[in-house]
Amino acid sequence: MDSFAPPVERLIEQFNRLPGIGRKSAVRMAFFILGMKNSDAEAFADAIKEAKRTVKFCSVCQNLTENEICPICANEKRDHSVICVVSDPKDAAAIERTREFKGVYHILHGVINPLLSVGPDNIRIKELIHRLKDDVKEVIIATDPDTAGEATAMYLSRLIKPYGIYVSRLAYGMPMGSHLEYADDLTLLRAMEGRKEF
Amino acid sequence: MDSFAPPVERLIEQFNRLPGIGRKSAVRMAFFILGMKNSDAEAFADAIKEAKRTVKFCSVCQNLTENEICPICANEKRDHSVICVVSDPKDAAAIERTREFKGVYHILHGVINPLLSVGPDNIRIKELIHRLKDDVKEVIIATDPDTAGEATAMYLSRLIKPYGIYVSRLAYGMPMGSHLEYADDLTLLRAMEGRKEF
Repeated sequence: MDSFAPPVERLIEQFNRLPGIGRKSAVRMAFFILGMKNSDAEAFADAIKEAKRTVKFCSVCQNLTENEICPICANEKRDHSVICVVSDPKDAAAIERTREFKGVYHILHGVINPLLSVGPDNIRIKELIHRLKDDVKEVIIATDPDTAGEATAMYLSRLIKPYGIYVSRLAYGMPMGSHLEYADDLTLLRAMEGRKEF
Repeated sequence: MDSFAPPVERLIEQFNRLPGIGRKSAVRMAFFILGMKNSDAEAFADAIKEAKRTVKFCSVCQNLTENEICPICANEKRDHSVICVVSDPKDAAAIERTREFKGVYHILHGVINPLLSVGPDNIRIKELIHRLKDDVKEVIIATDPDTAGEATAMYLSRLIKPYGIYVSRLAYGMPMGSHLEYADDLTLLRAMEGRKEF
């Protein structure tokens, strides 16, 4: 164990808590901070405090926002009859990047995962069901294509279909730019199943 | 470019500035902070501010410390006649970890590197020379065995020898647990040159 001055050690510990950051990277980061101009380090610390203080959940879609309602939900030009359900704000941001989706989102903030004791009540499913009362035509379930994401998608589709709403799922298949040679069996299988006429 | 709420973007930008942290890792870290308990995020921000506020340079060895003089320089049991010169506080910490060195340190905070416009006046050499007035018997130069570290070691040895002080350099050779097969030529060459009687 290295022995730096206690305030340096405390800073290292904080960085060490971040996902994917081991002791060595944490040391490098702490020293980077110590080498910063004072005003820059203050800005860093303030960005943390400000984000925690000002960022709330959109009361409609549960995405992160500074306002009561996020810019997407507040945008009247978006199609509010199509809701894309994702597990995470990062996923909504990824879909926004395509600039193609004109509907709105719903952020679950997690997926159902019995192994981690995450049940339907631990993610924002109640809030989604609450939105279905209006003129919603389609719910696109865009959880990750892994075990927990699939289970969540299945659970949601059973829950939503009784409302007479069309429930869809993102297409499975070969990712663009990938090589058949390296594709895993399940992806290939799904790509075959989902094949379309040329 | 993703589009998160502005305070989230600002937090991502701050993490993105850290060494070795790209946009994706910065997003992951920002969301980790947002998912933290408020008190934990406050503690993180405060650790940054506290470290910047309280950490100073030891007036003797230039290491980071909370006090005027660091615990090593203030320790009367250490041998103050042997000074180990390193480029960085991390290097002194690495040597301390061996628990074998009983002398004191001098931290240069950098190495001479003309390519990066770092000259002798930009690192703490003046402070080292200032310490040589007393009863110093040996200066061990422990800069990294790379081009800039070697050049700095050479420069320092020429500067210190006229004081009649024994100047030494860390041994070069094969790192413990390494394989000859994978050693680079220069390391092998130095290991041969530095061979000792069995």
